[in-house]
Amino acid sequence: MAVNEVLAKYSKDQIKKASQVKALFFDVDGVLTDGGIIYDDTGVETKCFNVKDGYIISHLKQAGILVGIITGRESKIVSNRAAELKLDFCHQGISDKHAVFEKLVEYYKLKRKQVAYIGDDLNDVKTLRACGLSACPADAVSYIATQVDIVTQARGGKGAVREVSDLILAAKGVLDKIIKSSL
Amino acid sequence: MAVNEVLAKYSKDQIKKASQVKALFFDVDGVLTDGGIIYDDTGVETKCFNVKDGYIISHLKQAGILVGIITGRESKIVSNRAAELKLDFCHQGISDKHAVFEKLVEYYKLKRKQVAYIGDDLNDVKTLRACGLSACPADAVSYIATQVDIVTQARGGKGAVREVSDLILAAKGVLDKIIKSSL
Amino acid sequence: MAVNEVLAKYSKDQIKKASQVKALFFDVDGVLTDGGIIYDDTGVETKCFNVKDGYIISHLKQAGILVGIITGRESKIVSNRAAELKLDFCHQGISDKHAVFEKLVEYYKLKRKQVAYIGDDLNDVKTLRACGLSACPADAVSYIATQVDIVTQARGGKGAVREVSDLILAAKGVLDKIIKSSL
Amino acid sequence: MAVNEVLAKYSKDQIKKASQVKALFFDVDGVLTDGGIIYDDTGVETKCFNVKDGYIISHLKQAGILVGIITGRESKIVSNRAAELKLDFCHQGISDKHAVFEKLVEYYKLKRKQVAYIGDDLNDVKTLRACGLSACPADAVSYIATQVDIVTQARGGKGAVREVSDLILAAKGVLDKIIKSSL
Repeated sequence: MAVNEVLAKYSKDQIKKASQVKALFFDVDGVLTDGGIIYDDTGVETKCFNVKDGYIISHLKQAGILVGIITGRESKIVSNRAAELKLDFCHQGISDKHAVFEKLVEYYKLKRKQVAYIGDDLNDVKTLRACGLSACPADAVSYIATQVDIVTQARGGKGAVREVSDLILAAKGVLDKIIKSSL
Repeated sequence: MAVNEVLAKYSKDQIKKASQVKALFFDVDGVLTDGGIIYDDTGVETKCFNVKDGYIISHLKQAGILVGIITGRESKIVSNRAAELKLDFCHQGISDKHAVFEKLVEYYKLKRKQVAYIGDDLNDVKTLRACGLSACPADAVSYIATQVDIVTQARGGKGAVREVSDLILAAKGVLDKIIKSSL
Repeated sequence: MAVNEVLAKYSKDQIKKASQVKALFFDVDGVLTDGGIIYDDTGVETKCFNVKDGYIISHLKQAGILVGIITGRESKIVSNRAAELKLDFCHQGISDKHAVFEKLVEYYKLKRKQVAYIGDDLNDVKTLRACGLSACPADAVSYIATQVDIVTQARGGKGAVREVSDLILAAKGVLDKIIKSSL
Repeated sequence: MAVNEVLAKYSKDQIKKASQVKALFFDVDGVLTDGGIIYDDTGVETKCFNVKDGYIISHLKQAGILVGIITGRESKIVSNRAAELKLDFCHQGISDKHAVFEKLVEYYKLKRKQVAYIGDDLNDVKTLRACGLSACPADAVSYIATQVDIVTQARGGKGAVREVSDLILAAKGVLDKIIKSSL
């Protein structure tokens, strides 16, 4: 059960980028979920997250990595999930995501190359190109996939955030300790 | 991040048809959703749409393309989603979809070849054969797939509408501008 | 758009069996649904059916084929869906499905070989072996798949009932008329 | 319809381990479900189990096998499902799953090699390595899959528990009787 298994599928460049990450920001719909916009006929909305993503986020936090959401849509479900995962911030209803990204970088005194970002659509591209480690889920829009450092094997809502988080923790030498402490 | 990537998978004929499109009409169940008819035991119905479809529809509208729904079933969820996406119309509970299609063509002073239509079952065939650009999702009924210009790589509710919309916008030279303005 | 496409994937024996069918009975969970047993924390249950299955059932009924449900579980959702699809019967909470099958055969004055049955688990096996045309979805339990005339390409809740229904209607020479009347 | 079909995909060692099993314990999210953490905007949570898993659990119980849940999260839905399946216990909100496993082994006077355990993440590893037959679903975290006796062909919530249960019942010579009594 070696971290080597996790790192084996990445290039030296990808691993180097991941090792410099101090913050992980991501979109919600299509990244933390499978992109499903679910309504019932009484107007109630539902979202489906994944236990694997949630599990690793607690480890990211313990490793001192800043974790937060930047999303174009707005829902009580997302703020509840963000609170459950103890995220550092949850910015919803954002029309210009990159402007928010820039403010966050400044506010948290980060360099852009220290931020990993996971997005899946056109309103994520500017940030994907500016950040230090960019990723999109396997089922992202095709012309987004050509713009990122990593296309995850997992689809959105099915462990895409987990995959990027595992890489970051492995590249920083933390995953090895997490695994050893779980044995 | 070139529009060429989007157009590369289509033939000249498909691209020409797409370039003439001024309106996109589609079915709901199996096209805008994965075909799931979801009920709970208190009688509440649920539907699952996709964020990728919703995202591109705003761009279709900005490009002056008419967008609307023609569906055999009837649900408050669909009219709510249509309102959220600011669709031009939402005709539900339609037993003869093609009659409605013909009226819409007349009402909006369109030529049939200017309308793209996405459907997935027998009650869509007449319209699929009459319109200018016909498409069905990857998981449409097998004998529908032989009747259309395009079988999308995506399944219903998983980006089928997005794929057709991307083609239309790319063929009309609009997607290139959308992408550039997102950089 | 020929019925030949539908029949091409079946053997002469399968088509002959299908041509004799006067009734189609099926299980619910794993056949008409994907097997999901969905609960919320207020105790409400949800089930997910498929529009493609529902669509063809109206055509089975018009063709004079008897259609009904025999299921081990019990839920208001299933009786509601059965009513919506105007099924001839809906027997729920059945521990001995085959006993009910035998009574139905007698009640409706059918021969066993005139009944098609779709099931996916051990409590369906007796009926699958006794009926005229037996089928299970692609994702049925492995040792059920070896016991049936047809393993559908579609999974449960994703068009398995549609596939069997299309075969029956095609083998009886009805699908051709349905398709022609839809053009 | 032979049990040989079920056993054919396992090694002698796997079958031997399965034949010694007297208890089956498992995690919930990602094992009994597909890992979906589903919330609506009124705060209601939903979980999706699988009918195939539920069906075989009744047979495990009849065969005198102890069946129970050890999970890190906590939900009314899980206790309701556990009651429906008449599980022997349902331990939720457990931060140290292995400590609970050890207590259960002692309480039920079991040997570790008599317990099968199905888990899918890091907080399951200690137990997966200590138990007699360890398994994870096809979509478990990659570095868990290298730690178990069996990676099921089914994904979590799609029959992973069924597959392990079938193996146990087949290895113990019980599945053959179940199948025969179903004919």
